[in-house]
Amino acid sequence: MGKVFSHMTMSLDGFIADPRDRADELFDWYWTGEVTVPSREEGMSFQVDPASADMLREILATTGALVCGRRLFDLTNGWNGSHPVGAPVVVVTHRAPGDTEGWKSATVAGSVEEGITRAREIAGDKDVTIASADIAAQALDLGLVDEVHVSLVPVLLGEGIPYFANLTRAPHRFDDPVVIAGSRATHLKYAVRRG
Amino acid sequence: MGKVFSHMTMSLDGFIADPRDRADELFDWYWTGEVTVPSREEGMSFQVDPASADMLREILATTGALVCGRRLFDLTNGWNGSHPVGAPVVVVTHRAPGDTEGWKSATVAGSVEEGITRAREIAGDKDVTIASADIAAQALDLGLVDEVHVSLVPVLLGEGIPYFANLTRAPHRFDDPVVIAGSRATHLKYAVRRG
Repeated sequence: MGKVFSHMTMSLDGFIADPRDRADELFDWYWTGEVTVPSREEGMSFQVDPASADMLREILATTGALVCGRRLFDLTNGWNGSHPVGAPVVVVTHRAPGDTEGWKSATVAGSVEEGITRAREIAGDKDVTIASADIAAQALDLGLVDEVHVSLVPVLLGEGIPYFANLTRAPHRFDDPVVIAGSRATHLKYAVRRG
Repeated sequence: MGKVFSHMTMSLDGFIADPRDRADELFDWYWTGEVTVPSREEGMSFQVDPASADMLREILATTGALVCGRRLFDLTNGWNGSHPVGAPVVVVTHRAPGDTEGWKSATVAGSVEEGITRAREIAGDKDVTIASADIAAQALDLGLVDEVHVSLVPVLLGEGIPYFANLTRAPHRFDDPVVIAGSRATHLKYAVRRG
């Protein structure tokens, strides 16, 4: 059985996007390196430094399903039915699904628990990635997350949408991280301590 | 001339203390290692891992003056006149100084600019350390900080006192950090990009 992990690109002051939900400032590391890493979406590649390339390739190889929230799914138009990671998407939402291309291939779940359970079933031996910060925070509180990954960007945004908000069962303690020193992002992989 | 840097121990979600100003959860790395690093305060030593020991020794060797705010100075009772780093303390405050032991050896400044100017004069060729988060944030906005150091602790506190609050001139951009993988803290040293 694979692990459940969240991965976000975050500013040093804890934000994954600016207050208008734009993350351009943070996503430089995906597009400014010398190594081409093809995504699973046709015609779309990442351009990253060598260390980040290894990390991205591992995510692409091991992710078996992706859990996200309604906001991100609508914002990306359901990745038009084909997430760059190449894995099936489970959307946690209380509202009726839409009828766009993205929804046709998505699985709908009514709660975070159900979303992660469905994603685990889909992923099998592979990993489940949580792609929305609010889902990641709720899953952490529920004890459903094995690893928290942060691509920490050397910028202070001052304001924006936090990675870790509204935690109800903090503190959450992690092991010391695996550190991957990328260019324009320091990748930190933390294993969650239970109990 | 030395550099001006801030150094804080911070949770992964950006807090340097809990809402009641306690930082015990964050300061484990100072006391749980196998290497003894004597502070400049008689009878007080740090117990840290080897990587953190090198970093601490460097701070102790290069710091020529320390700038802090009134809250921290009062909270620590002015370190009883002898900060562990062994450097003179400049307190930024609008209120009249107290008459405790700590105040006798402290320099008082009425503004962040004045505090850093005075500290630079005292430090000479050595570095100026900013020890209060609110002073660090204001100094960043004023363009007076050369490096930002973060000892990033693998814990999510959920709430507390942030390292970087009330920034008025964000975004602030840094170079990729020097990373020192300590035990119970990943030390990240960022050079501030100007302009």
